[in-house]
Amino acid sequence: MQKQELLDCHARIEPYIHNTPVLSSGLINELIGASVFFKCENFQRGGAYKMRGATNAIVQLSSEERSKGVVTHSSGNFAQAVSLAAKSLGVMAHIVMPTSAPEVKKKGVQQYGGIIYECEPTLEARQAMADEIALRTGATFLHPSNQMNVIIGQGTAAIELMVEHSNLDAIFCPVGGGGLIAGTSLAVHYFGTGCTVFGGEPFEADDAYRSLQSGKIEGNETVNTIADGLRTTLGDINFPIIKEHVSAIIRVTEEEIVTAMRLVWERMKIVIEPSSAVTLAALIRNKEDFQGQKVGIIISGGNVDLSNLPF
Amino acid sequence: MQKQELLDCHARIEPYIHNTPVLSSGLINELIGASVFFKCENFQRGGAYKMRGATNAIVQLSSEERSKGVVTHSSGNFAQAVSLAAKSLGVMAHIVMPTSAPEVKKKGVQQYGGIIYECEPTLEARQAMADEIALRTGATFLHPSNQMNVIIGQGTAAIELMVEHSNLDAIFCPVGGGGLIAGTSLAVHYFGTGCTVFGGEPFEADDAYRSLQSGKIEGNETVNTIADGLRTTLGDINFPIIKEHVSAIIRVTEEEIVTAMRLVWERMKIVIEPSSAVTLAALIRNKEDFQGQKVGIIISGGNVDLSNLPF
Repeated sequence: MQKQELLDCHARIEPYIHNTPVLSSGLINELIGASVFFKCENFQRGGAYKMRGATNAIVQLSSEERSKGVVTHSSGNFAQAVSLAAKSLGVMAHIVMPTSAPEVKKKGVQQYGGIIYECEPTLEARQAMADEIALRTGATFLHPSNQMNVIIGQGTAAIELMVEHSNLDAIFCPVGGGGLIAGTSLAVHYFGTGCTVFGGEPFEADDAYRSLQSGKIEGNETVNTIADGLRTTLGDINFPIIKEHVSAIIRVTEEEIVTAMRLVWERMKIVIEPSSAVTLAALIRNKEDFQGQKVGIIISGGNVDLSNLPF
Repeated sequence: MQKQELLDCHARIEPYIHNTPVLSSGLINELIGASVFFKCENFQRGGAYKMRGATNAIVQLSSEERSKGVVTHSSGNFAQAVSLAAKSLGVMAHIVMPTSAPEVKKKGVQQYGGIIYECEPTLEARQAMADEIALRTGATFLHPSNQMNVIIGQGTAAIELMVEHSNLDAIFCPVGGGGLIAGTSLAVHYFGTGCTVFGGEPFEADDAYRSLQSGKIEGNETVNTIADGLRTTLGDINFPIIKEHVSAIIRVTEEEIVTAMRLVWERMKIVIEPSSAVTLAALIRNKEDFQGQKVGIIISGGNVDLSNLPF
């Protein structure tokens, strides 16, 4: 059923998303000793893979639900994605954003027509304000990562990658709230051939690594990472999927993230956000395990504040 | 004869270069009111279009000439291109670089195996040192922009762009030493259908604009521009071609260059160098003249020092 749902979802959202290009770099292949295929969701509409899940959730709403709008809380890419997907479908988007959210992401939401509600930068404050808006307006709540139709949507990036490169040995993706890696691991489970899934995570926000160790959802002890998209924690819907289908989470230092990010910018001439560099950093750190293999990397997004770069 | 030479050149260099992608952005199209097609030579081998001309020059050398190597002087992209093209063809590359050349470009030359000779940052010092090396080693001198086989090679980017989009109304490219715009305008002359060529140039290095005004080659009064690839002046081989086939040179301010550069990085998620942003800045400045048209832009390169960005 999930297998069919992934295919149905892809067909459903295809008119609203880009089938993003898969790029590679001779120099990076040489550096790692593997053939690396970058699925460039930084070129996705809204600048990140989040457009997939957001579209899948909104496109399935009834016309009555659509007329009441949608509401979400997000510090960044999901906020932009919901605004843009809602706009494409003629739906009003209420976006709760913490006061700490990067200016570039607030600007993105505004440009796509989302209505911003600012709140304190805690998960509790965000959820409370979103609940209040949902109650008042009747808007449907969309969770950035812990909702099955969103997770399935995010999995379609891996489907496209495997259609283009059917014989990948591994796929890497970043782990934040867990939506992308849960969707990716489902897609690989149903459509991969001998392919395993690895997550990349900063040491500074390693809740997923520790959750897989302990067998239950752990919070983050610190979120002092440049990878701002990965500061969130896993949820009860995506964690069981991750536990079942992900081979390992590889942790990386802040320095490794910046080095990998710079490598991609300098050599591939594409703009990726720090959260997207975490996966390449993880592959570089463990490159001995992937010699001669074909490895896919989901580049999750390219929404970065150019006024505040780490180099 | 030039028409056939362009086609022969493209066939000759094709095994050594990338047919780079042509990208577009809905938001930028909306902003300008035209359909803009970016020919992304930032994704070219060596990170710039210069690989085309360098390859065309080296691949035609006799085996005796190849055994003696090649020599050039360049502050940047042509130095990297000659090093890489020479390496691909098993030829030694002597590269004269001014002491003022960006570190990232020196590193590029070294990585591609070119031998660097540092000299004072004047055109005279560069030429004198290159002449001395040519005399001593028998290496063939390659000029970055004022040599017919190099000019023809640079024109192949426009050929590929017109193959992909056969009905362009205009093609914009930056003007530095004049090799790219001369090659582009020849390609458009022979293969365009109602297409005109415009050059983009900084006010701070507007030698080409003034040369077209006066009818003879003018020097630069200042080169105080962020577009480091455009500080050079036209030559006696390319100027007559430019005079005959280029419709106009549009000058832009430094602020317009940085704004256009940031727009491309933020919206298209690609890394382009300041010299490449000059063309988009020129199109934006004169957008009223291009409403509803199909416009090609040659993005010349993506070799930018990430430690020294203007935003």
